[in-house]
Amino acid sequence: MNVTDEEAARHREKMAKRKAVQDAEVAEKKIEKGLLIVHTGPGKGKSTAAFGLALRMLGHGKRVGVVQFVKGAWHTGERDAFAQFDDLLSWHSMGEGFTWETQDRARDVAAAERAWGKAMEFLADPEVALVVLDEINIALRYDYLSLETVLAGLEQRPAMQHVVATGRNAKPDLITAADLVTEFGAVKHHFAAGVKAQLGVEF
Amino acid sequence: MNVTDEEAARHREKMAKRKAVQDAEVAEKKIEKGLLIVHTGPGKGKSTAAFGLALRMLGHGKRVGVVQFVKGAWHTGERDAFAQFDDLLSWHSMGEGFTWETQDRARDVAAAERAWGKAMEFLADPEVALVVLDEINIALRYDYLSLETVLAGLEQRPAMQHVVATGRNAKPDLITAADLVTEFGAVKHHFAAGVKAQLGVEF
Repeated sequence: MNVTDEEAARHREKMAKRKAVQDAEVAEKKIEKGLLIVHTGPGKGKSTAAFGLALRMLGHGKRVGVVQFVKGAWHTGERDAFAQFDDLLSWHSMGEGFTWETQDRARDVAAAERAWGKAMEFLADPEVALVVLDEINIALRYDYLSLETVLAGLEQRPAMQHVVATGRNAKPDLITAADLVTEFGAVKHHFAAGVKAQLGVEF
Repeated sequence: MNVTDEEAARHREKMAKRKAVQDAEVAEKKIEKGLLIVHTGPGKGKSTAAFGLALRMLGHGKRVGVVQFVKGAWHTGERDAFAQFDDLLSWHSMGEGFTWETQDRARDVAAAERAWGKAMEFLADPEVALVVLDEINIALRYDYLSLETVLAGLEQRPAMQHVVATGRNAKPDLITAADLVTEFGAVKHHFAAGVKAQLGVEF
């Protein structure tokens, strides 16, 4: 691609302006705090992005706690990869598979409560830099967990601890409490074209 | 939480129906193919989710190629974490930082073209299960790369190879070519509340 001098000058000016805006924005931000992050919406990638954050923390040598509230058998790829970080990562899985596979509400509620108990251990430990509450929004949606209990637990956590809560249909009060909320929108999905779940993409 | 017998029965019925629908949907899907995945939109998590996919592939013992088209110094946490997978992962970074920091279009174009050359090596290698083209949408948006060249390169890749292309403002023709597109929407962002970029969250 050819770049003329005029183009180059125009580009330089545009980028210089943009850098000035960027620098000013960065300078304005002074607060440091543990963030409550919510990944919600119907699109794919909510849990994957949460595990990406976990990976980043582990890369910085920080401790991470993961609690999976719904999926049992899934995320096998991540689990195997994370095995490399055994000293920094604690992983608790409900281990019951999808709830529509168990068809036993009492068992699901008991499993969700056990998972929340594990989450509370992480939420009490300032050494844990990031807590991943994977698919907790599903547990909240089916009232396996009370929203008040969860919000109170999040509220009392160490000031610098980050939390990421995933799952579609996040409760409005959780969004209100959150610092960072991303809505994952499904623009196009290969399942609609008859493509099956594949290794590395879905599991 | 108490669960009455009636509630339990209702739940069992609902979940059994849902499982039947789910099983039928899974049975319908027979196609296996390498997916072109696009993470776009203004929300946070596009690259993080792509690196989460990379992690999953590495966990399955598959090879992954990463090319970063814009960010140079970022993703240090991921890079350090991925160092554990040196035998499976190849990482190419343009290493020029954000484009509005360089203010030199000719240099940016040359760097983008070098990065694309590296991408083409991955896109020619059937042993690479996943290619991450991080922030390629930015390079396309600024015309550092031609869309036709990129689409042609993606088209001729190995049939089972997955690709994930990230960055806001994905070109409509890239979305048309894609199998899976997630739009990351920014519902709430902590920068607006004066919170600065923090270790493990932004870098």
